Amino acid sequence: MTNGERLMASASIELLTIGTELLLGFTVDTNSAEIGQLLAASGVQLVRRTAVADREVEIREAVSQALQRTGALITTGGLGPTRDDITKKVVADLFGVPLEFHEPIWQGLVERFARLGRNLAATNRCQAEVPRGAVVLPNRWGTAPGLWLEAPLRAEHEGAPRLAILLPGVPREMRGLMAHEVIPRLAQWTGSTATVIRSALLRTTGVPESRLAERVGDIERELAPLSLAFLPSLSGVDLRLTAWDLPAAEAERRLGEGVAALRERVGEFTYAEGDTDLAAVVLQGARAAGLHLAVAESCTGGLLGARITAIPGSSDVFAGGVIAYDNAVKIRELGVPAELIESNGAVSEPVVRAMAEGAARRFGVEASLAVTGIAGPGGGSPSKPVGTVWYGLRLSGRTEAVSYVFPGEREEVRARAAQGALFLLLGRLREGSR
Amino acid sequence: MTNGERLMASASIELLTIGTELLLGFTVDTNSAEIGQLLAASGVQLVRRTAVADREVEIREAVSQALQRTGALITTGGLGPTRDDITKKVVADLFGVPLEFHEPIWQGLVERFARLGRNLAATNRCQAEVPRGAVVLPNRWGTAPGLWLEAPLRAEHEGAPRLAILLPGVPREMRGLMAHEVIPRLAQWTGSTATVIRSALLRTTGVPESRLAERVGDIERELAPLSLAFLPSLSGVDLRLTAWDLPAAEAERRLGEGVAALRERVGEFTYAEGDTDLAAVVLQGARAAGLHLAVAESCTGGLLGARITAIPGSSDVFAGGVIAYDNAVKIRELGVPAELIESNGAVSEPVVRAMAEGAARRFGVEASLAVTGIAGPGGGSPSKPVGTVWYGLRLSGRTEAVSYVFPGEREEVRARAAQGALFLLLGRLREGSR
Repeated sequence: MTNGERLMASASIELLTIGTELLLGFTVDTNSAEIGQLLAASGVQLVRRTAVADREVEIREAVSQALQRTGALITTGGLGPTRDDITKKVVADLFGVPLEFHEPIWQGLVERFARLGRNLAATNRCQAEVPRGAVVLPNRWGTAPGLWLEAPLRAEHEGAPRLAILLPGVPREMRGLMAHEVIPRLAQWTGSTATVIRSALLRTTGVPESRLAERVGDIERELAPLSLAFLPSLSGVDLRLTAWDLPAAEAERRLGEGVAALRERVGEFTYAEGDTDLAAVVLQGARAAGLHLAVAESCTGGLLGARITAIPGSSDVFAGGVIAYDNAVKIRELGVPAELIESNGAVSEPVVRAMAEGAARRFGVEASLAVTGIAGPGGGSPSKPVGTVWYGLRLSGRTEAVSYVFPGEREEVRARAAQGALFLLLGRLREGSR
Repeated sequence: MTNGERLMASASIELLTIGTELLLGFTVDTNSAEIGQLLAASGVQLVRRTAVADREVEIREAVSQALQRTGALITTGGLGPTRDDITKKVVADLFGVPLEFHEPIWQGLVERFARLGRNLAATNRCQAEVPRGAVVLPNRWGTAPGLWLEAPLRAEHEGAPRLAILLPGVPREMRGLMAHEVIPRLAQWTGSTATVIRSALLRTTGVPESRLAERVGDIERELAPLSLAFLPSLSGVDLRLTAWDLPAAEAERRLGEGVAALRERVGEFTYAEGDTDLAAVVLQGARAAGLHLAVAESCTGGLLGARITAIPGSSDVFAGGVIAYDNAVKIRELGVPAELIESNGAVSEPVVRAMAEGAARRFGVEASLAVTGIAGPGGGSPSKPVGTVWYGLRLSGRTEAVSYVFPGEREEVRARAAQGALFLLLGRLREGSR
């Protein structure tokens, strides 16, 4: 069964997501993206994705076409207690096998219902039926198990075996089954010579995409055969390196080298690899330097504190802060002189300096970050447009201030302002550790 | 051309999203959900969604199948400056029409490049080519226009006309073209007798799905032909009513009546319709009552302040707050007696009461909200498990405290805690306004 041709063909698969909700746009199809990533990283190429409604005729047409066209198919949804059992029937029929009662599945359902204090009706027995010859993939995250059926289709009894993998549509259950059951089996199914598609992420912030591209320059030739993508978001610009169709070990080695080469070119704008948050990097740096941190927030209104405290274990570094939204609070709680606000406005260098100093003093910490700005939509002026943000940083007895104008609407300006504040502190922590 | 049969057929359409990134899962396909919603609301049924890579052979197969199967197709992606022009060529070929140079598109490109200080190479002229007979849909949000081509296919010159709508894949451009060009044309194309699929959302919080379902009871018969869905999330449980295949006016009327009936059953747990945030409702209530608000946040670390200040115009109600992450801050900044923390722990009724009272006093406001809890992953104990949250509310000279245990991981507990604090205040504001 394992010849060269099958290996080639078996590296391709299709995905069918089943659900009327998907077509109506009530649900964003995150399952498809997750499955696409997992397959690519395992060396199985997803060549087509289809979504159809929970209707037998459309499920049948889509399953049948995919199995004939590509020979292998994963379905999500259309498995479950009620009308959703259609997929199982359709697949059994296309493969020309009967549905058989599966005692262990039934026992699992009975126990699950008993734990929830409910009875299982006899009409639920069809939930425990599986196409003859299917491998049952145990679902520890919900009721309906996954199914793996590898056999020739009914219409072509002598033909090559086709593969149908049926998964539930609930993201948590799909994810568990993909990771623990499907991916390991697919590795065997494709054979050990398979190549993979893997990627690595280098995170940058504080630099626009165009300037980052200049820094990175003509590195693409040097990185080949890896490809490089720029991914701008509110947290900065992530650089994604992708290795296409390489053996796993070579992909990992080239990605490691590629990230190192990129790091060197990008310099101080990088802050992490993978999905690490900037707040975690800043906390680590402050912890290493033995610093304690407080914040004084005006336009971000708590967002900066929320970013920091989202990281488990932040309490050994982060003391707290003042949300100084009202000017009276800046004066009373942070000791900003009223005349500074009167003569310079609340969004100004003198005020943000006083805010940072006030926070450091009140909280008795070595490091403090202050943010004041105009998040919009109102409050802008020609000299201080919407998006203007002043940062104050008090660190080891010195205060500095710096300003930016961020693009975007209210929530974008606020998110960029919080990220920028963290990046300002990270820069100084790095200088201090040199 | 407008006969009964065509009207029936024309109410169905397929969507083809083109992009290797989609199949690799690097990009979550939000375009599909947006287009699905817009089509449903306009009475056009999306019957199938397909995603393929940027490869001519696969685009050709998918476009051809969709036009033959359903007769109408929207594509996104595969339009643009470089290799992405494949879709246009494939469609022109399938319809048997030549690509023609379109002077206004070219002029638009030239002007756009000039504004950016760049020159347009002669090799870019193919970007200004369109299939003969196509309507050019102007793209004010980017470079590549949309295209609307309605004609018989080459293979069947005498057959019924098929419809291909080509849109760029950039979400902002797709969205602008759908709203301003495609939807109005589709309304004409389906004819005025078309029915629509529309939905309305009633937002609830502070009640688990199972208890909400008991309250709502057997309303489904009363609501028919509307359908009802329960949508649990970190902000609570939204109730979605959907009208299927009704004339637009009837759909709106029935949805209005249905929401009113639901509101009556759900009672105090509803806080808004549509996508209104709870913070906006709370701010409105506080403003109406002439109250000013301050917060004292421990486990939420600024999240509650961030939720409130995300709403434009919050500054007339919200004075500010203290992020009292460290116990020393609770003592020094909020005046919580140290012995209260020692004898009861920081997550306790006496401490949260003292936090609320301290915040109200410091900020000189009539209303204050305090939150202290165990967000996890560490810090839990048998008597105070992870997820335990105490709220303190000071309002018009009285203080109350209440506690919950929220499920989930750190960020879920924090998000639920911030939502719960807002809902506690909303409840008291409603009582006060009676």
